Order: sequence, then C-alpha cells, then structure tokens
Amino acid sequence: MPDLDGLLSPDRIAVVGSTDREGSVGRALLENLSTFDGDLLPINPNREEALGMYCYPDIESVPNPATVDLAIVAIPAAVVVETVRQLGAVGVDHVVVISAGFSEADAEGRQRERELIAVAEEYDLSLIGPNSVGIMSTATGLDATFLEGTPPEGGLSLVSQSGAFIAAVIGWAVQHGIGFSHIVSLGNEAVLDETAFLTAWDDDPATDVVLCYVEDVDDGRAFIETAREVTTETPVVVVKSGRTTAGAAAVASHTGSLAGSEDAYEAGFEQAGVLRARTIQDVFDFGQALAGLPPLADDRIAIVTNGGGPGVLAADAVDDARLDLAEFSSPVSGELESHLPAAADVTNPLDIIGDADLDRFESALDTVLDAETVDGAVVLSVPTALYEFADLAAVIGDRQQQYDKPVVACLMGGEPADRAAEALREYGIPNYFDPDRAVSSLQALADYGAIRRREYGEPTTFDVDREAAREILWETVERDIDFLGTEAIGLLDAYGIPTATGEIVTNPAAAMEVAAGIEGPVVMKLVSPDIIHKSDIGGVEIGVQETDAADTYRRLVERAREHDPEAQVLGVRVEELVDPAERTETIVGASRDPQFGPLLMFGFGGIFVEVFDDTAFRVAPVTEREARRMTSEIRAAPMLRGARGRRPADVDALVETIQRISQLVTDFPAIIELDVNPLVVSPAGISAIDVRLRVDANTLTGSVDD
Amino acid sequence: MPDLDGLLSPDRIAVVGSTDREGSVGRALLENLSTFDGDLLPINPNREEALGMYCYPDIESVPNPATVDLAIVAIPAAVVVETVRQLGAVGVDHVVVISAGFSEADAEGRQRERELIAVAEEYDLSLIGPNSVGIMSTATGLDATFLEGTPPEGGLSLVSQSGAFIAAVIGWAVQHGIGFSHIVSLGNEAVLDETAFLTAWDDDPATDVVLCYVEDVDDGRAFIETAREVTTETPVVVVKSGRTTAGAAAVASHTGSLAGSEDAYEAGFEQAGVLRARTIQDVFDFGQALAGLPPLADDRIAIVTNGGGPGVLAADAVDDARLDLAEFSSPVSGELESHLPAAADVTNPLDIIGDADLDRFESALDTVLDAETVDGAVVLSVPTALYEFADLAAVIGDRQQQYDKPVVACLMGGEPADRAAEALREYGIPNYFDPDRAVSSLQALADYGAIRRREYGEPTTFDVDREAAREILWETVERDIDFLGTEAIGLLDAYGIPTATGEIVTNPAAAMEVAAGIEGPVVMKLVSPDIIHKSDIGGVEIGVQETDAADTYRRLVERAREHDPEAQVLGVRVEELVDPAERTETIVGASRDPQFGPLLMFGFGGIFVEVFDDTAFRVAPVTEREARRMTSEIRAAPMLRGARGRRPADVDALVETIQRISQLVTDFPAIIELDVNPLVVSPAGISAIDVRLRVDANTLTGSVDD
Repeated sequence: MPDLDGLLSPDRIAVVGSTDREGSVGRALLENLSTFDGDLLPINPNREEALGMYCYPDIESVPNPATVDLAIVAIPAAVVVETVRQLGAVGVDHVVVISAGFSEADAEGRQRERELIAVAEEYDLSLIGPNSVGIMSTATGLDATFLEGTPPEGGLSLVSQSGAFIAAVIGWAVQHGIGFSHIVSLGNEAVLDETAFLTAWDDDPATDVVLCYVEDVDDGRAFIETAREVTTETPVVVVKSGRTTAGAAAVASHTGSLAGSEDAYEAGFEQAGVLRARTIQDVFDFGQALAGLPPLADDRIAIVTNGGGPGVLAADAVDDARLDLAEFSSPVSGELESHLPAAADVTNPLDIIGDADLDRFESALDTVLDAETVDGAVVLSVPTALYEFADLAAVIGDRQQQYDKPVVACLMGGEPADRAAEALREYGIPNYFDPDRAVSSLQALADYGAIRRREYGEPTTFDVDREAAREILWETVERDIDFLGTEAIGLLDAYGIPTATGEIVTNPAAAMEVAAGIEGPVVMKLVSPDIIHKSDIGGVEIGVQETDAADTYRRLVERAREHDPEAQVLGVRVEELVDPAERTETIVGASRDPQFGPLLMFGFGGIFVEVFDDTAFRVAPVTEREARRMTSEIRAAPMLRGARGRRPADVDALVETIQRISQLVTDFPAIIELDVNPLVVSPAGISAIDVRLRVDANTLTGSVDD
Repeated sequence: MPDLDGLLSPDRIAVVGSTDREGSVGRALLENLSTFDGDLLPINPNREEALGMYCYPDIESVPNPATVDLAIVAIPAAVVVETVRQLGAVGVDHVVVISAGFSEADAEGRQRERELIAVAEEYDLSLIGPNSVGIMSTATGLDATFLEGTPPEGGLSLVSQSGAFIAAVIGWAVQHGIGFSHIVSLGNEAVLDETAFLTAWDDDPATDVVLCYVEDVDDGRAFIETAREVTTETPVVVVKSGRTTAGAAAVASHTGSLAGSEDAYEAGFEQAGVLRARTIQDVFDFGQALAGLPPLADDRIAIVTNGGGPGVLAADAVDDARLDLAEFSSPVSGELESHLPAAADVTNPLDIIGDADLDRFESALDTVLDAETVDGAVVLSVPTALYEFADLAAVIGDRQQQYDKPVVACLMGGEPADRAAEALREYGIPNYFDPDRAVSSLQALADYGAIRRREYGEPTTFDVDREAAREILWETVERDIDFLGTEAIGLLDAYGIPTATGEIVTNPAAAMEVAAGIEGPVVMKLVSPDIIHKSDIGGVEIGVQETDAADTYRRLVERAREHDPEAQVLGVRVEELVDPAERTETIVGASRDPQFGPLLMFGFGGIFVEVFDDTAFRVAPVTEREARRMTSEIRAAPMLRGARGRRPADVDALVETIQRISQLVTDFPAIIELDVNPLVVSPAGISAIDVRLRVDANTLTGSVDD
C-alpha cells in the first residue's frame, strides 16, 4: 500500500490540461485550486498561460519535476497514457486522471485503461481514476475537483465510485455546514480503490468517520481484512448501490462490470465490521452521529419529550430498531417524580408535558442520563412559547458532554429548529425532524459500539484427511464430469462431518442385507448424478422395514427409469432413519462469489430456503463465532432452540459442521458449488444425509499442490 | 353526522377565557384570531377587556347569542361543563374545548368528561376536545389555536389526536411553504373524532388530501365505511402511533386507553383504502405528492438522470418498493438514441450523462413520458455548470403538465436545490434529496391509483343452517363452559364447510368399526377440552390401519391420562387421512378486536404462524376479493399455487371457507375466538379437521334473536 500523503497533502501540484477556456474542466480545476497554498504548476503545450499563470509545455519543462507531488490530468483520453508515462518517468508519484473515455466507454477505452494500468505498475504510481471528478482535502485547502463549492473542515472523509454522488454531497454539505476532511472520487478504479483509502485514513487524525459509496468491491477478502483493522478505531459507513435485481442490472449497464451477489456483499460487509446504509439519507445521518457522539455501550434508550404523540412515535421507532426502551429503577423514578408535575407519568418515553420549561428538561436529562439503565437518549420537543429551541440545544449539548452518553435531538418544526440544529452541531449532536431518523442514528451508534467490542479471532483448523478429499474430487477429472452426488459423501467423512450410517447398494439383496444391519427402519434413496431433486420424483423412501428393502430397491430404480430412461443410476443408498419427531432438516451450502470467494449458506431445508428465503450467509473461512451467528440469525432459529415443546437440537455439532465445510471449501477452491442437503440435526447430534457438488476441474488440476 | 360548516367557516366566534395576560392560552388564541374577518366576541367575567376588545361576562350577554357559530373554551377544567351547558342552552352549535384536565388526567377528569359528553348530547353539540390545541382553516383566515405560525393556504387537511404533532407540523409547513386547508386538533375526542372529519371533508373542494394522526380508532367499522367513501375522490394518509409493543404501551400510558391489536389496525386501514405512513416524513412526502400529482395508472417507472450512481440508487428504490422499472419499446429507444450522445445507454435508468444540458433533459422527458410503457417518472440531477436547477424545474414541471403523468424530482444538493424545490412546488411536484424518498412517493401514488380502481363489492351471503349452529353454541350455556373443541365440528357443517369424514368414538371397538368404514388408513385423535395442543402430547396418530385402530384408541387415552389425570376425555375422533404428499395444513382463525370487531386470520399451520408470523388478517365480514387476497399475501402463498412440483391446491375452496367463517363470526358475535386448525387443503378440495372456539355466554344469550 503506497503512502498517500503526497496525494492528499501535496506541496507541488501540476495541472496537465490547464486552460482558461470558459466552461472547461481544466479551467474549473485551476479556479478551485487557487486556494491551494503550495506550488501550482499549469501544464499545456498549446497555451502560454492560463488564468494569468504561466503554462509549462510539459512535465519535463517544470523546474525540479521529480519534486512535484501530484499531477492532475484533464486532457483528451487519447493522449492520457503517454502523458502519465512522462509523469512517471520524471518521478511524479501521485496522479489523478480526470479524463473520461476509458473502460466506462467502449472497447477502445478498455484497451486504453489496460495500458494505463501497465504504465502505473511500471512506475509504481498511486493513480486515481480515470473518469474521476477529482479529490479534495479541506485541511490543506486542496480542491482538485471541477465541482462547485467546498465544504467546511470536519471529521467526515468520503470515498466514492460515483462522481455524481460527490457533486450532490458537496452541495448538501456546503448548505448545511457539514464538515469534511477528504473527498476522493475513484472513477474507474484502475489502480487505487476504496480499500486503499480505508488504509490511508486508518491513522488519519483528521478522519473521524469514513463514508463510502460503492457499486462493486473488486477484492472482497482484502476489503474485509482492511476494514476490520480500520473499524477498531474509525467507523466506516458504506452505501452499496445495485443491491437489488433492478439496481444490479443498472450497475452492469453503467459500469460495464458484473456485480457479485447481494448475499455476498451483505455477508462481507457484516464480517468487515462496516455499517451499511440503505439510502443516501442514512449515510449522512449515520455519518454525522458517528462523527459527533460516542458509540452506545448497550441498547437501552431513554426518550424525553414535551409532547406525548412524538414520544410514542419515538417508542415505535425504538421497537422497530434493534434497541430497547430503558427501564427506570425506582430511585430514578423517585428522582423524576420529585422534579415533575403530578400529571407527568415517570415512564419511558418520559413525557414532561407541554408546559415544560428549560429547567424541567434540564433536571429530567440530568436524572435520566445519570441512570445506570440508560445508555443513550432521544430528546424531542415541539415548539412552545416557554423557551427558544437554541437555548434547549445548549441544555442538551451540555448534558451530553457531562454524561458522555450519546444523545440525539428531535427539535421539530420550522426555522427555530434550523437554528437549534446549528447550535447542536457545535456539540456534535444531530437534529432531526423525524423521530424515526433520530432513532436510526442511535441504532448506528449501537451497531458501531458492538463492532468495537467484537473479537474476530481466527478460524479453527480441524484435523482432516485432505488427501482422501482430494482423491474424491479428482474423480471429476478422471471421469471428465463436473458434478458429484451422493457417491461423494466420503468427502464429508474426510472432513470429519458425521454422515448417516449406511451404504450404496446395487441390487435388491444387498439392500436387504444393509437394512438388516441397521437398527430400526431405514431410509432408501436413489443415487444418480442425473436426477437432482430426487424426492420430487419419489426417489426417496423413508421408514422402510428390513423386509421391504428389496421391493423398495426395485421400485426406486423403476421410478428413475420412468422419470428419465437415459439417467445413469449408480445404485440406492440405504441408511439409518433419524426419529422424525426430533429431526430438523437443514442445508449447509457453499458457492464461489467473483468478489468475495467462497460463500457459505445455512438454512432449513425445503420451502424455508426456497419460499421464505430464510438463509444466513458468510464469507469463508468463518470463525466459530460467525458459524454460530449463522445458526441464530435465520428466522427459523427458535426451532433449533426447541420451539413447540421439542428438545433443543445439538447446535454445537451444527456450528462445528459449518466450520468444517468452511475449511473444505477454503482448502479446495475448485469446489464452485456444494450442498449438504439434508443435514439432519437432532438433540443427539448431526448427520449429513446427502451431498451435491460442482467442481471446476481446471482449478483442481492447477490448485492441488500436495 | 352534524354539518361542520359552522366549525370551520364560522361568522361569529366567542372566545370563552379571553385575556391579555402574557403567556396565557387565552391571549394566544385572541392574537391568532385577530386575522379572522368575522365577528370576534371575547368572554371573561373577570375582565372588562382583552387586547383592547370588550369582554362580555358570559354567553347570555352577547347580542344574539344563538347566531354565534363557534365558541372556543379555554378556562379552568372545573368550570368547563357548566360553561358548555350555557353555550348549548343559548343555541351555540359548535364548541372547541381547549382546557385540559379531563380523561387524560385522572379519575376526577374522567368523570368530568362523562358530564361533558352528556351535555354535548343534550344540546346536540359538535364538540372538539377537550384537551385540544384548537382548529385552523386557512381559507377563512381562521386560526383558533394557541400555537405560533399559520401555514399558507393549500390542499392538505390534517386531523390529529396529538396536539404536539400539530405544533410540529405548523412550524414545518410555515418554513417550507406547504399549504394547508384545515387543521383540527381532536384532543380527547369526547364527541367528534377523525371519522367525523373524514365525512366533513369528503366533498370539501379545498381539501385535496386528508392527513390523519391517530393513536386509536374508537369505532373501526365506521372508520372503514367512511374512509371507503371518501377515498374514491380524496386520498387519506394515516400515521398510527403505538404500532409496536413499546409504542402501544406508551399510548396506554399517554391516553389511558388500551390499544387494539396492530393486526386489526393493519387490516382495517387496508380495507378502508387509506394509505398508511410509518413515519412523520412519510406522511408529508405522501401528502405532498398526492396533493400535487395524479395517481399512477400502473406501476412502471422511468428514471431520467444526469448521474449514473444516483440513477442506480433510484433503481434499487424502485425494486425495494412494489414498483417496476419501465421497459422502453424499440421505437422509444430509437427516439432516445437520436437525441442522446453515443456514450449514453438507452436503458432504464436512463443516464443522459454528466454533460447533459436542459435541451437533453427536455427531449429525454418528452420521449419517456410519451411512451406507453411508462406510467410515471423520477428525474434526478446533480449540480452541474450547464444549467440552473430552477430552469430544470420549469422543464420538469411543463413536461409533467403536458403528459399528465406523475413526475417526482430529485435535484440534489445545496441552496439551488431549495430554490428549485420552490419552483417545482408551483407545479405540485415534490423535490427530494434522497432518491429513495422520491420513489416512496411514487409508491404512494401507485397505491392510491389502485385504491381508486378498487371495487369493494358486498360480502357473499351463503345459505347456512344458522339454527344448528346456534344449538351447538348453546351447549356452552347449558354446560356452563366457555370453550368448545372437536365436539363442535358440527358448527362447520352447519356453515357448509367440508369437514373430514369420521366421527367421535368412545371405545376401542367403535374405533375399529369406524376405521373399517373409511377407505385407507385413518387419523385418530383425542377429543378433550382440557388438552389444547394435542399433537404435543402424542394425542394424534396419523396413518392408522383398521387393524390397529382399537390398540391406538387405548394408547391415546392412556397418553391423555399420563399427561393430566384430571383431563376430561370425551373420546377419540377417527377420520379419513388426506394423502400427506398433497395436503397443506392451514389455519383459519377469528378473534374479536375491541375497535374493529371480528378479525379473521389465515396462515399455514405450525411454525409458519408461530415462528414466521406468516399471517394475513382482515376485518369481517369479508368479500370474495378480500378472502382471496388473504390467501395470496402470505409469504407461503407459492405453496398453494404448487411450488416444488406439487399440484396447485384448491384455492377457490379455501377462499369460500374463509368467507363462510367470516359469515359465522359475523352472525354470532358471541364467538370471541375461533380456530379451524388444521384446515387441510389439497388439489381435490378442502377439509376442516379440527376446531376450537371460545364463546361469551352473555353475548350469546343476549344476541340470538331467532
């Protein structure tokens, strides 16, 4: 990772493409850079001067060109690569390419971008763009963008794949006085991406919060690892567009890149410890709250209001969020009662009634914020004649600082609220018109608190028979196929995952013999690589008695023939039956995401996955904590814990199985799809009944190094 | 329903409690009423004048007191009832009681409110309050509130149970120039409630949209019927606080009333045709869009943007909503291509690229809004140097008017956006910073479009044996119990609902005999009013052969004894078994909501209801359309339509059963809880297997009139 100091706090800047032509990007850049207090060096072979400054014909003509820290390039696409090569050759380390006409445009542009990357690699350039709207750093007065306006100095740093998003943010920040430290437009991300800036801003004292707009993340694993480091000290808020089917199609059309799965992003961002914002409004709301306030120590929120209705709306919002309404202990209630009129109920939300004055807010806040059961608060007020909002702002701000618990405000209605918002901003406290947004911001502070308390740990490495697994996978190479079914169940044995007792038989007599060796009735199912949904064609019989095993064998094979006369039938698997009253059928699956690599899935079988989409995803390898979270975050999780009078299932065994499968798909990148389905869990343990996987033979032959 | 003209456009107003004491409510009222151009009559026995106006000692002293249209009462609670009696006695019809100290306060207050209601009934008063912050009507310059500020004239009318909410709204409306017609603070709703104002504003030409803040709805059925009428012409947006457990507890503490179930409100509002807003922001966003724009004819949205990133965010928002991205037919694409630069993709979202000028927006909007496949549009722009936002606003506004399709705007960033928002408001077009909010507003226009197209129809009345049902219910009276189980299955027969073939037996031999009379294996289950979850104690055996029926009988009875030696066992029901591969177990239930009356529930059995909470509710009686919607809106609905290769279930039979149960619980209000569970649906039809109900004997003995 290159040092980005020269990029964001340069001493000497060259502007290649400087001009004073009205409406041009080159002129807008020069104008914006006029506040820069270092050396500004316009370059343009066709002009003597621009905006009254002397234009050098090229970088070589600049005195001491090797000491130029940063070059901004805003020239026709056709001459960009050669110009950047010259910059690299004289020793300029940092380049921002504003010019468009690269991979976002057409095939010619994509070729041009490959050449640009080659040049950047040759000279080890820290290069932003192409197709960037520029960069900005308020502390050094650097505005190397062609956009209008500069936000005040402040603790937010923004990195964005969308230049339009930056244009909108700047306008909004200027209007509302929201302070920014750095703003970086990544453009096409030919070289530097968001992960580079996460790293750069990790130890930056000017950056309190990183905001990130992304449409895709190239290297998901690197993003996760970097973000985990950064977020121990600095919160990161990400808005990812193209979350939905329609949005992903729009991204593909807009950037030409194919998006990875939303499931992978959702999982990857969760594991990275970044906060995900769904909307632009959330990005700013979360960013401001995180920049100005401490994280929540726990989830217990107090609501203090002078209006009952808004208090109830705030209580609804707390319930909608993953927060709790704080309870007031009896000393706290007593204290509140002594300060409040008799008509006030000392419950939470605490309605201190419409005739509340500043003193009443003050004593209520003192009591509530001092309470041990309160981790943070929302203060709501509708306008009354009894005080100015700006004075209430000071009361709230002072109390927040005194007790150092997060407090957000909802001073509702009109110009006075805007003035109060300014006053509150001095204390780092955001103000909202809508209680719902205020509570969402507290949720972001709670989420970040939880992230700070996280211990990631290392994935457990189990003792497995990797060689045996390799041999099973190699069957695909030997038989020139890419799919394995029940016949590959030994793969799970090799990785220490309990499989159902039983074996594959190829004639009725053998079926009977195996059934005789198993206690109680058995399950019999077809083994065929050509029949995928076996239960749908009657290819699975449950509860077969020993005496019926031979007949059942014949029936199953016949059904396979009826379904598809061409289907290859490898035999019938006869295995033990787990008591249906205690069994839960789950699925552990894995797929390979283009950005994040192996992606694990856990869910209940059948319609729970297919109709209810009740699934949990994580990027492998997972730790024990992550595997356990997968089993607890699906909606059906109460079933594992023993809902409806059932005994709890052996969740520990399930968690271990998820980790072992994580290890398997991490060890063998050639496994591009894997389904352990059903994976039966009962109070007595776990048993994998069937497996299906798809293997990429090329990866396999190349990847196995032992 | 009284005529409310005198209330909202009075000629003569008496203000009881007029004073010029600083900071008093009486003074604030007089000040706000100074703009009223009719006759203003201050009343106060203790003052000669207030704000320079003569004070009458009482209403009798006012000249022609019977011609006073409206009296505002702001005096101590203790003297309110007597004062209102005097007002009624002289012939004043409309009274707004500002005074607090009634049912919201304490037991004494509740008594006082009962007296107030009695007086209002005696004189047939249209009474608002008590504990109201007043009323406002911009067209007549009437501001009879004690709040600061008056919004401009406009098409929104607001009725609210929270005075604080009104205070916040007024501040916000004044600041943003949002126009209101009427604003009514209902206070404790002793007499007039939101339903009264829905009726009053139904034909009010000044009201384009009704906004409604409620914490509870007293008479749910009346609200539904009134709202259905009103919403054929006028959209109604409701925010109901106390949606959540925490919120409902806060309402109870705040108003002293117990809230009805959120399921009932959700269903009732849906059936009423009102739009439900979750947050304050949504109320205003929806209200403004509905006031200024036509409803959507269908769900197909076009996105026109000068920035790719914001376009993708808008596409995500469309996907999140229940809207579709419009597809452009090839003539439309061709037309767009001819106007746009080669680099622009003519897909939706339509990115007309950062160098777009006004002409390009104009031609893109012309083409898109003219397209048959487009029902509405979002226009997004980030700031550029190529045009002023205010000019773009005019382009958008003119196109919206020309094509008369709804268009919302997202001109993002800074002061220019605020100015553009003003210009857009002239056209009735809302502007948002966040594409997500813009799309939510289009969703509101789509929802209202669908409501306008609705045909409610009448519930079907089936030919049933009401007398037989009555006799079964009367068993509860005769046996002095309030619960009936399987033994009441005849209730379903009486209402024409197919029940499983079979009967209740009381000895092993009879079990065998009944099993012999049924084709194939049978289901046997305990009949006991004391054992509710029978399957949890092994009280149900499925797939019993005729030969095992006697043994199974003994086993079931033994299990009941083991579980609870005191349990009364009425016998064992032996019934046909529906093929497990084709059966879906559903539940149709009913309960009695304090506000909305009989509430129907539909869901799949077992964990689908209990763990996934996958249920649909409607207030009975339901029409065929409503019953069908219940079967299609649960998440598991695809299972009924034949997911995973199954044959589709007989949904028509299910829909009819829901309607028949609707008729049953409507005919017998004494049924306070009913569960038909399981109700087995298969491709061949429907079969109710078991029933449980709770009956209120008092209602029964009083209600049965035949």
